[in-house]
Amino acid sequence: MSAPAAFPYLVTLGDDRLILGHRLSEWCGHGPILEEDIALANIALDLIGQATLFLKLAAAAEGKGRSEDDLAFLRDAIDFRNVLLVELPRGDFAVTVVRQLLFSVYSLLQMEALSAVGDADVAGVAAKAAKETRYHVRHATQWVVTLGGGTAESHRRAQTALDDLWRYTGELFIATPADLAAEQAGAGVNPESLAAAWHAQIGEILRVAGLETPAAGYMQRGGREGRHTEHLGHLLSEMQILARSHPGAEW
Amino acid sequence: MSAPAAFPYLVTLGDDRLILGHRLSEWCGHGPILEEDIALANIALDLIGQATLFLKLAAAAEGKGRSEDDLAFLRDAIDFRNVLLVELPRGDFAVTVVRQLLFSVYSLLQMEALSAVGDADVAGVAAKAAKETRYHVRHATQWVVTLGGGTAESHRRAQTALDDLWRYTGELFIATPADLAAEQAGAGVNPESLAAAWHAQIGEILRVAGLETPAAGYMQRGGREGRHTEHLGHLLSEMQILARSHPGAEW
Repeated sequence: MSAPAAFPYLVTLGDDRLILGHRLSEWCGHGPILEEDIALANIALDLIGQATLFLKLAAAAEGKGRSEDDLAFLRDAIDFRNVLLVELPRGDFAVTVVRQLLFSVYSLLQMEALSAVGDADVAGVAAKAAKETRYHVRHATQWVVTLGGGTAESHRRAQTALDDLWRYTGELFIATPADLAAEQAGAGVNPESLAAAWHAQIGEILRVAGLETPAAGYMQRGGREGRHTEHLGHLLSEMQILARSHPGAEW
Repeated sequence: MSAPAAFPYLVTLGDDRLILGHRLSEWCGHGPILEEDIALANIALDLIGQATLFLKLAAAAEGKGRSEDDLAFLRDAIDFRNVLLVELPRGDFAVTVVRQLLFSVYSLLQMEALSAVGDADVAGVAAKAAKETRYHVRHATQWVVTLGGGTAESHRRAQTALDDLWRYTGELFIATPADLAAEQAGAGVNPESLAAAWHAQIGEILRVAGLETPAAGYMQRGGREGRHTEHLGHLLSEMQILARSHPGAEW
């Protein structure tokens, strides 16, 4: 079992994936192409599955008898620790795949580093997640390259999505006290160590896609400290309604 | 490629699974238990995947240049050929798993028989679907047995769901002209031939679950002839909105 010090860090790993998975599952049955609908839903399921495993580890590390379902369904927005990037509305298809690219490349670097930490439970979940995330990166890369090099309209939408989302990427790499405590306990990775590789890889993909990397500028933050946009509240009320309207239902 | 005579039959195979898959995907992110949410979403994806393959075969058999996406997204309710059972609202969790049981047992018998027909394309898709459907039957059986033998409330809900849905099961076994034409062409199975095994298997599962098999009575029908409930219209307008609001969008 992971050290109690790892609890808040494991929550961030779970929350990023839970919220992004739910955003992505909003495409469920709404994509205009059956095969793409299925691909996005599969990625959403991977993310929710990863979230489940990290929140299970978090609950065990906390040791207060809460389950992963309690963490997912019975917390308020202020107690969620996901980055703002993942809670933004799904937008159009370009926003969806650009966000998937920005997050997946980050997540793959994070999961690869995390699969080498001393805590065997955390490392094991991270190794499984890394395997899945390799496919997510490939899928998002293909779409961003397709949109970037496609029609004038698809290029415009991809660039707009990128410009809009860029200011939410800085938060991915800010080391919080929770990150440092988990790193200390052998169950975490300092996100600052991922920034250079992320910028290099994203820059290369955008170059191939013919998209311009936005200039460094003001970066939004707050999610890791529980200061969220109003979008998270809406998402949670939708996601939690069943669990909360039947508290402890066992039928 | 399948014979043109098989087109309307292949459409019924696709439509049953497309509509049930979309009904099930409504649970996406709404289940009160993360793991069950994922299980239902995976089953929904299997169904939509099977639908895609059958509609692709249907489009090829028709030979008019329509794609599986055209069939899924650009037909009106009156052109859908699914049974009424799969279009009913998702209801509560008991309705969902009881419907899954009733349909999955039927689908497994159908896919097993279909995997032995002369048309190699149809047989191949059916064999793959049969493999997935074995898990669907197991999943639904476990839940129906759990609810049936659980609390008084879970038992009551399961029995109510069964009593409400029973009248929609007769339509599964009515042989239509489309069925007979496909059987003739070596690409279909007469559904009448599946009825006895279905009743035997469902009867046994309900016995184990401590639920009463409803008495034979008046049976609803109409879906196979395009006479649907108003529920299908609502489902389609939700499912098709994106494809129809961007006709032929390629960006």
